[in-house]
Amino acid sequence: MKLNVGISNRHVHLNNDDYKMLFGNKELTKRNDLTQPGMYACNETVIIKGNKRSFDNVRVLGPLRNYTQVEISKSDCYYLGNNAPVRNSGDLNDAGEITIIGPVGEITKKALIIATRHIHVDKNIRKTHNLEGIEKVSVKISGEKSGIIDNVYLKDSEEAFFELHLDTDDANAFLLNQGDTVEIIEKN
Amino acid sequence: MKLNVGISNRHVHLNNDDYKMLFGNKELTKRNDLTQPGMYACNETVIIKGNKRSFDNVRVLGPLRNYTQVEISKSDCYYLGNNAPVRNSGDLNDAGEITIIGPVGEITKKALIIATRHIHVDKNIRKTHNLEGIEKVSVKISGEKSGIIDNVYLKDSEEAFFELHLDTDDANAFLLNQGDTVEIIEKN
Repeated sequence: MKLNVGISNRHVHLNNDDYKMLFGNKELTKRNDLTQPGMYACNETVIIKGNKRSFDNVRVLGPLRNYTQVEISKSDCYYLGNNAPVRNSGDLNDAGEITIIGPVGEITKKALIIATRHIHVDKNIRKTHNLEGIEKVSVKISGEKSGIIDNVYLKDSEEAFFELHLDTDDANAFLLNQGDTVEIIEKN
Repeated sequence: MKLNVGISNRHVHLNNDDYKMLFGNKELTKRNDLTQPGMYACNETVIIKGNKRSFDNVRVLGPLRNYTQVEISKSDCYYLGNNAPVRNSGDLNDAGEITIIGPVGEITKKALIIATRHIHVDKNIRKTHNLEGIEKVSVKISGEKSGIIDNVYLKDSEEAFFELHLDTDDANAFLLNQGDTVEIIEKN
């Protein structure tokens, strides 16, 4: 079963309280829609301050959520000098501590994760693609640096766009570009 | 068949003429031995200047060779703003153009590659591990972000230390550390 790849650079999700702490009473503003219905990249960016170094201009994704989460790659961990566990989005168990700096204020909290490899699905996609009851899959990637990635979790939402989301480490290791096609080969 | 992983950060091999152009008549000096017999990291470093950005302190590896080659990752390509093909060491066909700056001089030449995933072998290792006549293999990697990498070339030398060499993109995608153990699962 084939599907497209979306590549996620480091980014930030914010809850309402943290957003207000960082940006004050200014409204969150959309820059562009993302492939997942209702999700968008904002004009707003923050600084992610690690133990050794920082990243400027880290994009905030909207809409606001009920948790604050900073998603980075393992390469980013080495650059920042911070540790982060591999977690499904929203699971901040043992998340790394990170400082987020906005134009108005800053916060330091346990919000730093490496997102699991995941595929966005909804009930309809699960049914159509014979993925009902499946927790995770393996995905075959073609090309000059081909291979297979395991532990790709299915991530449910009300309405999804069927797409594999990888971080920049996975994408660059396999020389993948946004919109490339890959194949689900094993279901668990 | 199990073997250890060695992770290669960006680095430079120089031929004698280019070394003299960059460093003058100063001798190349060893900082520390590498795992491959006779290979070493030098005290000498260069600046790699790309189209958009540069890397300082890029390590020169010794001894000098009969070709000049700059090995980087795909992530490094994006950072520098330069393209590089995936190539076995020494194959500079269509290599990317790059500027190398030393303390005495600088050179610009087609020397920029992403090294293929490779395993160092010699005649004895091939015999002992039943790898005679094999060009490339697939390797299984365990862990939280597990998977399989294909197109791992066997690289022969007179005397080798049996080890898989990966760049930092592959290592970080699979959360691998120097000295971790992986497994050859397919031979072609």
